[in-house]
Amino acid sequence: MYRHESTVAVRYAETDAMGVVHHASYIVWFEVGRTEWLEALGTTYADFERSGFFLVVAEVGAHYRRPVRYGDPIRLLTWPSAIKSRAIRFHYEVRHATTDELMVSGFTQHILTDHDGRIRTWPEEMSGIIEQSRGSV
Amino acid sequence: MYRHESTVAVRYAETDAMGVVHHASYIVWFEVGRTEWLEALGTTYADFERSGFFLVVAEVGAHYRRPVRYGDPIRLLTWPSAIKSRAIRFHYEVRHATTDELMVSGFTQHILTDHDGRIRTWPEEMSGIIEQSRGSV
Amino acid sequence: MYRHESTVAVRYAETDAMGVVHHASYIVWFEVGRTEWLEALGTTYADFERSGFFLVVAEVGAHYRRPVRYGDPIRLLTWPSAIKSRAIRFHYEVRHATTDELMVSGFTQHILTDHDGRIRTWPEEMSGIIEQSRGSV
Amino acid sequence: MYRHESTVAVRYAETDAMGVVHHASYIVWFEVGRTEWLEALGTTYADFERSGFFLVVAEVGAHYRRPVRYGDPIRLLTWPSAIKSRAIRFHYEVRHATTDELMVSGFTQHILTDHDGRIRTWPEEMSGIIEQSRGSV
Repeated sequence: MYRHESTVAVRYAETDAMGVVHHASYIVWFEVGRTEWLEALGTTYADFERSGFFLVVAEVGAHYRRPVRYGDPIRLLTWPSAIKSRAIRFHYEVRHATTDELMVSGFTQHILTDHDGRIRTWPEEMSGIIEQSRGSV
Repeated sequence: MYRHESTVAVRYAETDAMGVVHHASYIVWFEVGRTEWLEALGTTYADFERSGFFLVVAEVGAHYRRPVRYGDPIRLLTWPSAIKSRAIRFHYEVRHATTDELMVSGFTQHILTDHDGRIRTWPEEMSGIIEQSRGSV
Repeated sequence: MYRHESTVAVRYAETDAMGVVHHASYIVWFEVGRTEWLEALGTTYADFERSGFFLVVAEVGAHYRRPVRYGDPIRLLTWPSAIKSRAIRFHYEVRHATTDELMVSGFTQHILTDHDGRIRTWPEEMSGIIEQSRGSV
Repeated sequence: MYRHESTVAVRYAETDAMGVVHHASYIVWFEVGRTEWLEALGTTYADFERSGFFLVVAEVGAHYRRPVRYGDPIRLLTWPSAIKSRAIRFHYEVRHATTDELMVSGFTQHILTDHDGRIRTWPEEMSGIIEQSRGSV
Protein backbone atom coordinates (compact mmCIF):
# COMPACT_ATOMS: atom_id res chain seq x y z
CA MET A 1 0.00 0.00 0.00
CA TYR A 2 1.03 3.60 -0.58
CA ARG A 3 2.94 5.06 2.41
CA HIS A 4 2.43 8.76 2.83
CA GLU A 5 5.09 10.88 4.45
CA SER A 6 4.00 14.06 6.25
CA THR A 7 6.21 16.72 7.74
CA VAL A 8 5.06 17.73 11.22
CA ALA A 9 6.13 20.96 12.90
CA VAL A 10 5.61 20.55 16.65
CA ARG A 11 3.25 23.24 17.96
CA TYR A 12 4.08 24.78 21.33
CA ALA A 13 0.45 24.14 22.34
CA GLU A 14 1.09 20.42 21.80
CA THR A 15 3.85 20.24 24.43
CA ASP A 16 3.28 19.84 28.16
CA ALA A 17 5.00 20.78 31.42
CA MET A 18 7.28 17.71 31.10
CA GLY A 19 8.84 19.64 28.19
CA VAL A 20 7.76 17.12 25.57
CA VAL A 21 4.86 16.57 23.19
CA HIS A 22 1.78 15.52 25.17
CA HIS A 23 0.75 11.94 24.42
CA ALA A 24 -2.73 12.95 23.20
CA SER A 25 -1.21 15.28 20.58
CA TYR A 26 0.12 12.31 18.56
CA ILE A 27 -3.44 11.02 18.16
CA VAL A 28 -4.24 14.30 16.38
CA TRP A 29 -1.08 13.93 14.26
CA PHE A 30 -2.32 10.49 13.19
CA GLU A 31 -5.49 12.22 11.96
CA VAL A 32 -3.36 14.67 9.98
CA GLY A 33 -1.48 11.71 8.50
CA ARG A 34 -4.53 9.84 7.22
CA THR A 35 -6.04 13.10 5.91
CA GLU A 36 -2.90 13.68 3.86
CA TRP A 37 -2.84 10.03 2.79
CA LEU A 38 -6.31 10.52 1.26
CA GLU A 39 -5.23 13.78 -0.37
CA ALA A 40 -2.17 12.13 -1.88
CA LEU A 41 -4.56 9.66 -3.54
CA GLY A 42 -6.59 12.46 -5.07
CA THR A 43 -9.53 12.88 -2.72
CA THR A 44 -10.18 14.66 0.59
CA TYR A 45 -11.92 13.58 3.76
CA ALA A 46 -14.14 16.69 3.43
CA ASP A 47 -15.35 15.41 0.02
CA PHE A 48 -15.78 11.95 1.47
CA GLU A 49 -18.11 13.35 4.15
CA ARG A 50 -19.96 15.50 1.64
CA SER A 51 -20.76 12.33 -0.31
CA GLY A 52 -22.40 10.97 2.85
CA PHE A 53 -19.70 8.69 4.25
CA PHE A 54 -17.81 8.78 7.53
CA LEU A 55 -14.72 6.94 8.75
CA VAL A 56 -15.70 6.57 12.40
CA VAL A 57 -12.77 5.84 14.73
CA ALA A 58 -13.45 2.52 16.47
CA GLU A 59 -10.09 1.95 18.09
CA VAL A 60 -6.79 3.71 18.63
CA GLY A 61 -3.47 2.56 19.98
CA ALA A 62 -0.09 4.23 20.43
CA HIS A 63 3.29 3.13 21.65
CA TYR A 64 5.51 5.95 22.94
CA ARG A 65 9.18 5.03 22.49
CA ARG A 66 11.06 8.33 22.77
CA PRO A 67 9.81 11.78 23.72
CA VAL A 68 9.52 14.38 20.96
CA ARG A 69 10.58 17.88 21.98
CA TYR A 70 9.60 21.28 20.64
CA GLY A 71 11.85 22.05 17.69
CA ASP A 72 12.49 18.40 16.77
CA PRO A 73 12.07 17.89 13.01
CA ILE A 74 9.49 15.15 12.56
CA ARG A 75 8.21 13.06 9.70
CA LEU A 76 5.06 10.99 10.00
CA LEU A 77 4.50 7.87 7.92
CA THR A 78 0.92 6.74 7.31
CA TRP A 79 -0.37 3.69 5.48
CA PRO A 80 -3.38 1.40 5.61
CA SER A 81 -2.37 -1.89 7.21
CA ALA A 82 -5.71 -3.59 6.45
CA ILE A 83 -8.67 -2.69 4.24
CA LYS A 84 -11.92 -4.63 4.49
CA SER A 85 -15.29 -4.06 2.88
CA ARG A 86 -16.60 -1.99 5.80
CA ALA A 87 -13.44 -1.02 7.67
CA ILE A 88 -9.93 0.31 7.31
CA ARG A 89 -6.94 0.20 9.65
CA PHE A 90 -4.17 2.77 9.43
CA HIS A 91 -0.71 2.39 10.83
CA TYR A 92 1.53 5.33 11.78
CA GLU A 93 5.18 5.94 12.53
CA VAL A 94 6.47 9.21 14.00
CA ARG A 95 10.17 9.45 13.19
CA HIS A 96 12.87 12.01 13.92
CA ALA A 97 13.52 13.53 10.50
CA THR A 98 17.29 13.73 10.94
CA THR A 99 18.17 10.57 12.87
CA ASP A 100 15.26 8.47 11.57
CA GLU A 101 14.67 7.19 15.12
CA LEU A 102 11.20 5.78 15.71
CA MET A 103 9.65 8.02 18.36
CA VAL A 104 6.01 6.86 18.39
CA SER A 105 4.09 4.18 16.51
CA GLY A 106 0.36 3.61 16.46
CA PHE A 107 -2.76 2.57 14.64
CA THR A 108 -6.39 3.56 14.21
CA GLN A 109 -9.23 1.25 13.27
CA HIS A 110 -12.15 2.84 11.38
CA ILE A 111 -15.63 1.70 10.49
CA LEU A 112 -17.35 3.04 7.41
CA THR A 113 -20.78 4.56 8.16
CA ASP A 114 -23.34 6.90 6.65
CA HIS A 115 -24.58 10.09 8.30
CA ASP A 116 -27.00 8.12 10.52
CA GLY A 117 -24.29 5.82 11.83
CA ARG A 118 -25.33 2.80 9.73
CA ILE A 119 -22.43 0.63 8.64
CA ARG A 120 -21.72 0.87 4.90
CA THR A 121 -19.42 -0.56 2.27
CA TRP A 122 -16.98 1.63 0.36
CA PRO A 123 -18.50 3.87 -2.32
CA GLU A 124 -17.37 2.91 -5.84
CA GLU A 125 -15.17 5.98 -6.19
CA MET A 126 -13.24 5.10 -3.04
CA SER A 127 -12.80 1.49 -4.15
CA GLY A 128 -11.00 2.87 -7.18
CA ILE A 129 -8.81 5.05 -5.00
CA ILE A 130 -7.95 2.11 -2.77
CA GLU A 131 -7.04 -0.02 -5.80
CA GLN A 132 -4.84 2.82 -7.00
CA SER A 133 -3.19 2.87 -3.56
CA ARG A 134 -2.37 -0.83 -3.82
CA GLY A 135 -0.79 -0.12 -7.19
CA SER A 136 1.46 2.46 -5.55
CA VAL A 137 3.28 -0.06 -3.37
CA MET B 1 -25.76 40.11 37.46
CA TYR B 2 -25.19 36.68 38.96
CA ARG B 3 -21.48 35.80 39.21
CA HIS B 4 -20.80 32.12 38.90
CA GLU B 5 -17.77 30.59 40.55
CA SER B 6 -16.26 27.46 38.98
CA THR B 7 -13.48 25.31 40.35
CA VAL B 8 -10.90 24.46 37.71
CA ALA B 9 -8.43 21.59 38.07
CA VAL B 10 -5.54 22.25 35.68
CA ARG B 11 -5.15 19.34 33.25
CA TYR B 12 -1.63 18.26 32.38
CA ALA B 13 -2.62 18.43 28.70
CA GLU B 14 -3.35 22.14 29.20
CA THR B 15 0.22 22.97 30.21
CA ASP B 16 3.09 23.61 27.81
CA ALA B 17 6.86 23.25 27.72
CA MET B 18 7.24 26.58 29.57
CA GLY B 19 5.81 24.67 32.55
CA VAL B 20 2.64 26.76 32.73
CA VAL B 21 -0.91 26.63 31.40
CA HIS B 22 -0.87 27.36 27.66
CA HIS B 23 -2.57 30.67 26.81
CA ALA B 24 -5.16 29.02 24.55
CA SER B 25 -6.32 26.73 27.38
CA TYR B 26 -7.85 29.66 29.26
CA ILE B 27 -10.14 30.35 26.30
CA VAL B 28 -11.55 26.84 26.80
CA TRP B 29 -11.89 27.51 30.56
CA PHE B 30 -13.95 30.61 29.72
CA GLU B 31 -16.29 28.31 27.79
CA VAL B 32 -16.57 26.06 30.83
CA GLY B 33 -17.37 29.14 32.92
CA ARG B 34 -20.25 30.37 30.80
CA THR B 35 -21.61 26.82 30.45
CA GLU B 36 -21.74 26.55 34.23
CA TRP B 37 -23.20 30.06 34.49
CA LEU B 38 -26.13 28.90 32.33
CA GLU B 39 -26.52 25.72 34.37
CA ALA B 40 -26.56 27.68 37.61
CA LEU B 41 -29.54 29.59 36.19
CA GLY B 42 -31.42 26.38 35.47
CA THR B 43 -30.75 25.74 31.79
CA THR B 44 -27.97 24.18 29.73
CA TYR B 45 -26.26 25.26 26.53
CA ALA B 46 -27.14 21.83 25.09
CA ASP B 47 -30.87 22.59 25.65
CA PHE B 48 -30.36 26.06 24.22
CA GLU B 49 -28.98 24.58 20.99
CA ARG B 50 -31.70 21.92 20.87
CA SER B 51 -34.28 24.74 20.89
CA GLY B 52 -32.55 26.12 17.75
CA PHE B 53 -30.39 28.90 19.17
CA PHE B 54 -26.64 29.39 19.13
CA LEU B 55 -24.37 31.80 21.00
CA VAL B 56 -21.77 32.35 18.30
CA VAL B 57 -18.45 33.72 19.57
CA ALA B 58 -17.80 37.04 17.82
CA GLU B 59 -14.84 38.25 19.84
CA VAL B 60 -12.50 37.09 22.55
CA GLY B 61 -9.89 38.85 24.62
CA ALA B 62 -7.60 37.77 27.45
CA HIS B 63 -5.05 39.47 29.62
CA TYR B 64 -2.43 37.15 31.12
CA ARG B 65 -1.18 38.57 34.41
CA ARG B 66 0.49 35.65 36.18
CA PRO B 67 1.25 32.14 34.95
CA VAL B 68 -0.89 29.30 36.31
CA ARG B 69 1.06 26.10 37.01
CA TYR B 70 -0.04 22.49 37.16
CA GLY B 71 -1.36 21.82 40.65
CA ASP B 72 -2.40 25.44 41.35
CA PRO B 73 -5.91 25.53 42.84
CA ILE B 74 -7.99 27.79 40.61
CA ARG B 75 -11.39 29.39 40.77
CA LEU B 76 -12.98 30.98 37.73
CA LEU B 77 -15.53 33.78 38.02
CA THR B 78 -17.99 34.28 35.15
CA TRP B 79 -20.66 36.90 34.69
CA PRO B 80 -22.38 38.73 31.83
CA SER B 81 -21.00 42.25 31.61
CA ALA B 82 -23.56 43.34 28.98
CA ILE B 83 -26.77 41.83 27.64
CA LYS B 84 -28.44 43.23 24.55
CA SER B 85 -31.39 42.00 22.50
CA ARG B 86 -29.21 40.01 20.08
CA ALA B 87 -25.92 39.73 21.95
CA ILE B 88 -24.29 38.94 25.27
CA ARG B 89 -20.85 39.70 26.65
CA PHE B 90 -19.28 37.58 29.37
CA HIS B 91 -16.44 38.62 31.59
CA TYR B 92 -14.06 36.16 33.29
CA GLU B 93 -11.55 36.18 36.09
CA VAL B 94 -9.14 33.31 36.75
CA ARG B 95 -8.00 33.56 40.36
CA HIS B 96 -5.66 31.53 42.55
CA ALA B 97 -8.05 29.82 44.96
CA THR B 98 -5.79 30.25 48.00
CA THR B 99 -4.20 33.66 47.52
CA ASP B 100 -7.06 35.16 45.46
CA GLU B 101 -4.48 36.64 43.06
CA LEU B 102 -5.89 37.56 39.67
CA MET B 103 -4.03 35.34 37.19
CA VAL B 104 -5.96 35.94 33.95
CA SER B 105 -8.93 38.10 33.00
CA GLY B 106 -10.89 38.09 29.78
CA PHE B 107 -14.13 38.47 27.92
CA THR B 108 -16.13 36.90 25.11
CA GLN B 109 -18.69 38.65 22.95
CA HIS B 110 -21.50 36.46 21.54
CA ILE B 111 -24.14 36.96 18.90
CA LEU B 112 -27.42 35.11 19.08
CA THR B 113 -28.22 33.15 15.90
CA ASP B 114 -30.39 30.32 14.68
CA HIS B 115 -29.09 27.13 13.06
CA ASP B 116 -28.66 28.88 9.70
CA GLY B 117 -26.58 31.69 11.14
CA ARG B 118 -29.36 34.30 11.04
CA ILE B 119 -29.22 36.80 13.89
CA ARG B 120 -32.06 36.33 16.40
CA THR B 121 -33.41 37.87 19.58
CA TRP B 122 -33.51 35.91 22.84
CA PRO B 123 -36.19 33.23 23.09
CA GLU B 124 -38.81 34.04 25.74
CA GLU B 125 -37.55 31.36 28.11
CA MET B 126 -34.04 32.80 28.09
CA SER B 127 -35.34 36.32 28.70
CA GLY B 128 -36.85 34.97 31.90
CA ILE B 129 -33.58 33.36 32.88
CA ILE B 130 -31.72 36.59 32.22
CA GLU B 131 -34.18 38.55 34.34
CA GLN B 132 -33.70 36.01 37.10
CA SER B 133 -29.94 36.50 36.78
CA ARG B 134 -30.32 40.25 37.30
CA GLY B 135 -32.34 39.50 40.41
CA SER B 136 -29.46 37.43 41.74
CA VAL B 137 -27.07 40.36 42.03
CA MET C 1 -7.88 -2.05 43.62
CA TYR C 2 -9.73 1.15 44.39
CA ARG C 3 -11.93 2.29 41.48
CA HIS C 4 -12.32 6.01 41.26
CA GLU C 5 -15.41 7.53 39.72
CA SER C 6 -15.09 10.97 38.11
CA THR C 7 -17.88 13.11 36.72
CA VAL C 8 -17.02 14.53 33.32
CA ALA C 9 -18.84 17.52 31.81
CA VAL C 10 -18.26 17.44 28.03
CA ARG C 11 -16.59 20.66 26.88
CA TYR C 12 -17.77 22.14 23.60
CA ALA C 13 -14.11 22.41 22.56
CA GLU C 14 -13.86 18.62 22.92
CA THR C 15 -16.51 17.95 20.26
CA ASP C 16 -15.90 17.88 16.52
CA ALA C 17 -17.80 18.54 13.30
CA MET C 18 -19.30 15.03 13.45
CA GLY C 19 -21.27 16.38 16.44
CA VAL C 20 -19.61 14.05 18.94
CA VAL C 21 -16.65 14.08 21.31
CA HIS C 22 -13.41 13.87 19.30
CA HIS C 23 -11.57 10.60 19.85
CA ALA C 24 -8.41 12.33 21.15
CA SER C 25 -10.41 14.10 23.88
CA TYR C 26 -11.00 10.81 25.73
CA ILE C 27 -7.23 10.38 26.08
CA VAL C 28 -7.21 13.65 28.03
CA TRP C 29 -10.17 12.44 30.12
CA PHE C 30 -8.16 9.34 31.03
CA GLU C 31 -5.48 11.69 32.36
CA VAL C 32 -8.11 13.48 34.45
CA GLY C 33 -9.24 10.08 35.75
CA ARG C 34 -5.83 8.92 36.96
CA THR C 35 -5.13 12.37 38.45
CA GLU C 36 -8.32 12.11 40.50
CA TRP C 37 -7.50 8.49 41.39
CA LEU C 38 -4.23 9.71 42.96
CA GLU C 39 -6.04 12.53 44.76
CA ALA C 40 -8.62 10.12 46.14
CA LEU C 41 -5.71 8.20 47.70
CA GLY C 42 -4.38 11.32 49.38
CA THR C 43 -1.63 12.53 47.05
CA THR C 44 -1.44 14.57 43.86
CA TYR C 45 0.49 14.10 40.65
CA ALA C 46 1.92 17.62 41.14
CA ASP C 47 3.42 16.49 44.49
CA PHE C 48 4.65 13.31 42.88
CA GLU C 49 6.55 15.34 40.27
CA ARG C 50 7.87 17.75 42.89
CA SER C 51 9.42 14.77 44.69
CA GLY C 52 11.29 13.99 41.45
CA PHE C 53 9.20 11.21 39.95
CA PHE C 54 7.32 11.03 36.66
CA LEU C 55 4.75 8.57 35.33
CA VAL C 56 5.74 8.63 31.68
CA VAL C 57 3.06 7.34 29.30
CA ALA C 58 4.49 4.37 27.41
CA GLU C 59 1.34 3.11 25.74
CA VAL C 60 -2.28 4.08 25.27
CA GLY C 61 -5.26 2.24 23.83
CA ALA C 62 -8.93 3.12 23.45
CA HIS C 63 -11.96 1.31 22.16
CA TYR C 64 -14.78 3.60 21.01
CA ARG C 65 -18.12 1.82 21.39
CA ARG C 66 -20.71 4.60 21.26
CA PRO C 67 -20.34 8.30 20.49
CA VAL C 68 -20.62 10.74 23.39
CA ARG C 69 -22.48 13.94 22.55
CA TYR C 70 -22.32 17.41 24.06
CA GLY C 71 -24.67 17.48 27.03
CA ASP C 72 -24.43 13.74 27.77
CA PRO C 73 -23.88 13.15 31.50
CA ILE C 74 -20.73 11.08 31.82
CA ARG C 75 -18.98 9.19 34.58
CA LEU C 76 -15.45 7.92 34.20
CA LEU C 77 -14.16 4.92 36.12
CA THR C 78 -10.40 4.64 36.69
CA TRP C 79 -8.42 1.89 38.36
CA PRO C 80 -4.95 0.37 38.13
CA SER C 81 -5.19 -2.97 36.37
CA ALA C 82 -1.55 -3.88 37.06
CA ILE C 83 1.15 -2.45 39.32
CA LYS C 84 4.73 -3.54 39.00
CA SER C 85 7.91 -2.27 40.63
CA ARG C 86 8.68 0.21 37.84
CA ALA C 87 5.37 0.49 36.02
CA ILE C 88 1.64 0.94 36.41
CA ARG C 89 -1.25 0.24 34.07
CA PHE C 90 -4.55 2.09 34.40
CA HIS C 91 -7.83 0.98 32.96
CA TYR C 92 -10.69 3.36 32.15
CA GLU C 93 -14.39 3.15 31.40
CA VAL C 94 -16.41 6.09 30.09
CA ARG C 95 -20.06 5.41 30.90
CA HIS C 96 -23.30 7.29 30.30
CA ALA C 97 -24.26 8.46 33.79
CA THR C 98 -27.98 7.78 33.33
CA THR C 99 -28.11 4.61 31.25
CA ASP C 100 -24.75 3.18 32.44
CA GLU C 101 -23.92 2.26 28.83
CA LEU C 102 -20.22 1.73 28.19
CA MET C 103 -19.26 4.41 25.67
CA VAL C 104 -15.46 4.13 25.59
CA SER C 105 -12.95 1.90 27.34
CA GLY C 106 -9.20 2.20 27.38
CA PHE C 107 -5.90 1.82 29.18
CA THR C 108 -2.61 3.61 29.67
CA GLN C 109 0.71 2.00 30.53
CA HIS C 110 3.19 4.12 32.49
CA ILE C 111 6.84 3.79 33.34
CA LEU C 112 8.21 5.34 36.48
CA THR C 113 11.18 7.66 35.84
CA ASP C 114 13.12 10.44 37.48
CA HIS C 115 13.57 13.91 35.99
CA ASP C 116 16.36 12.70 33.69
CA GLY C 117 14.27 9.89 32.23
CA ARG C 118 16.01 7.11 34.20
CA ILE C 119 13.70 4.26 35.18
CA ARG C 120 12.97 4.14 38.91
CA THR C 121 11.10 2.07 41.46
CA TRP C 122 8.23 3.53 43.46
CA PRO C 123 9.19 5.92 46.24
CA GLU C 124 8.33 4.55 49.69
CA GLU C 125 5.47 6.98 50.20
CA MET C 126 3.79 5.83 46.99
CA SER C 127 4.22 2.17 47.93
CA GLY C 128 2.15 2.92 51.02
CA ILE C 129 -0.50 4.65 48.94
CA ILE C 130 -0.65 1.71 46.56
CA GLU C 131 -1.03 -0.73 49.46
CA GLN C 132 -3.83 1.44 50.80
CA SER C 133 -5.44 1.29 47.35
CA ARG C 134 -5.41 -2.51 47.42
CA GLY C 135 -7.13 -2.36 50.77
CA SER C 136 -9.90 -0.26 49.26
CA VAL C 137 -11.14 -2.98 46.92
CA MET D 1 7.55 44.80 8.44
CA TYR D 2 7.78 41.44 6.77
CA ARG D 3 4.39 39.71 6.45
CA HIS D 4 4.59 35.97 6.58
CA GLU D 5 1.99 33.86 4.83
CA SER D 6 1.28 30.39 6.21
CA THR D 7 -0.94 27.73 4.71
CA VAL D 8 -3.23 26.16 7.30
CA ALA D 9 -4.97 22.81 6.78
CA VAL D 10 -7.92 22.65 9.17
CA ARG D 11 -7.59 19.63 11.46
CA TYR D 12 -10.76 17.70 12.25
CA ALA D 13 -9.83 17.90 15.94
CA GLU D 14 -9.98 21.71 15.64
CA THR D 15 -13.67 21.73 14.64
CA ASP D 16 -16.59 21.57 17.05
CA ALA D 17 -20.18 20.32 17.10
CA MET D 18 -21.32 23.57 15.42
CA GLY D 19 -19.50 22.19 12.35
CA VAL D 20 -16.91 24.97 12.30
CA VAL D 21 -13.43 25.61 13.65
CA HIS D 22 -13.59 26.12 17.42
CA HIS D 23 -12.73 29.68 18.44
CA ALA D 24 -9.80 28.57 20.64
CA SER D 25 -8.16 26.77 17.71
CA TYR D 26 -7.37 30.07 15.96
CA ILE D 27 -5.28 31.12 18.99
CA VAL D 28 -3.10 28.07 18.31
CA TRP D 29 -2.94 28.98 14.61
CA PHE D 30 -1.66 32.43 15.61
CA GLU D 31 1.17 30.64 17.44
CA VAL D 32 1.94 28.68 14.28
CA GLY D 33 1.98 31.97 12.36
CA ARG D 34 4.52 33.72 14.57
CA THR D 35 6.66 30.58 14.73
CA GLU D 36 6.83 30.54 10.94
CA TRP D 37 7.44 34.30 10.86
CA LEU D 38 10.57 33.74 12.98
CA GLU D 39 11.67 30.85 10.78
CA ALA D 40 11.23 32.94 7.65
CA LEU D 41 13.69 35.41 9.19
CA GLY D 42 16.26 32.71 9.76
CA THR D 43 15.80 31.72 13.40
CA THR D 44 13.46 29.45 15.36
CA TYR D 45 11.58 29.94 18.60
CA ALA D 46 13.24 26.74 19.88
CA ASP D 47 16.68 28.38 19.39
CA PHE D 48 15.40 31.57 20.97
CA GLU D 49 14.41 29.63 24.10
CA ARG D 50 17.67 27.69 24.12
CA SER D 51 19.51 31.01 24.27
CA GLY D 52 17.54 31.80 27.45
CA PHE D 53 14.79 34.07 26.17
CA PHE D 54 11.02 33.67 26.20
CA LEU D 55 8.25 35.57 24.45
CA VAL D 56 5.60 35.34 27.16
CA VAL D 57 2.05 35.98 25.94
CA ALA D 58 0.66 38.95 27.86
CA GLU D 59 -2.51 39.56 25.89
CA VAL D 60 -4.54 38.01 23.10
CA GLY D 61 -7.51 39.23 21.10
CA ALA D 62 -9.49 37.78 18.22
CA HIS D 63 -12.37 38.97 16.11
CA TYR D 64 -14.39 36.17 14.48
CA ARG D 65 -15.95 37.43 11.26
CA ARG D 66 -16.91 34.29 9.33
CA PRO D 67 -16.83 30.65 10.38
CA VAL D 68 -14.09 28.46 8.88
CA ARG D 69 -15.25 24.94 8.01
CA TYR D 70 -13.32 21.69 7.68
CA GLY D 71 -11.92 21.53 4.16
CA ASP D 72 -11.73 25.32 3.67
CA PRO D 73 -8.35 26.31 2.20
CA ILE D 74 -6.85 28.87 4.56
CA ARG D 75 -3.92 31.21 4.51
CA LEU D 76 -2.73 32.98 7.63
CA LEU D 77 -0.91 36.30 7.50
CA THR D 78 1.38 37.21 10.41
CA TRP D 79 3.38 40.36 11.01
CA PRO D 80 4.63 42.39 13.98
CA SER D 81 2.47 45.48 14.36
CA ALA D 82 4.72 47.00 17.06
CA ILE D 83 8.20 46.21 18.35
CA LYS D 84 9.49 47.80 21.51
CA SER D 85 12.67 47.19 23.51
CA ARG D 86 11.04 44.63 25.81
CA ALA D 87 7.88 43.68 23.91
CA ILE D 88 6.46 42.70 20.55
CA ARG D 89 2.93 42.72 19.19
CA PHE D 90 1.90 40.43 16.35
CA HIS D 91 -1.13 40.89 14.16
CA TYR D 92 -2.86 38.02 12.34
CA GLU D 93 -5.34 37.62 9.52
CA VAL D 94 -7.00 34.29 8.71
CA ARG D 95 -8.21 34.47 5.10
CA HIS D 96 -10.01 32.06 2.79
CA ALA D 97 -7.30 31.08 0.32
CA THR D 98 -9.62 31.12 -2.71
CA THR D 99 -11.97 34.04 -2.06
CA ASP D 100 -9.51 36.06 0.09
CA GLU D 101 -12.36 36.77 2.54
CA LEU D 102 -11.17 37.81 6.00
CA MET D 103 -12.46 35.10 8.35
CA VAL D 104 -10.70 35.97 11.62
CA SER D 105 -8.31 38.70 12.69
CA GLY D 106 -6.39 38.98 15.93
CA PHE D 107 -3.30 40.00 17.81
CA THR D 108 -0.98 38.81 20.55
CA GLN D 109 1.12 40.98 22.82
CA HIS D 110 4.35 39.45 24.14
CA ILE D 111 6.82 40.42 26.82
CA LEU D 112 10.43 39.40 26.56
CA THR D 113 11.70 37.53 29.63
CA ASP D 114 14.48 35.21 30.73
CA HIS D 115 13.96 31.74 32.18
CA ASP D 116 13.16 33.16 35.63
CA GLY D 117 10.46 35.49 34.31
CA ARG D 118 12.57 38.67 34.56
CA ILE D 119 11.83 41.20 31.83
CA ARG D 120 14.67 41.52 29.33
CA THR D 121 15.61 43.50 26.23
CA TRP D 122 16.16 41.80 22.88
CA PRO D 123 19.40 39.82 22.51
CA GLU D 124 21.72 41.36 19.92
CA GLU D 125 21.13 38.58 17.42
CA MET D 126 17.37 39.16 17.49
CA SER D 127 17.83 42.92 17.05
CA GLY D 128 19.59 42.13 13.80
CA ILE D 129 16.77 39.84 12.73
CA ILE D 130 14.20 42.51 13.53
CA GLU D 131 16.13 45.10 11.53
CA GLN D 132 16.25 42.65 8.65
CA SER D 133 12.47 42.24 8.98
CA ARG D 134 11.97 46.00 8.63
CA GLY D 135 14.05 45.90 5.51
CA SER D 136 11.75 43.26 4.07
CA VAL D 137 8.69 45.52 3.92
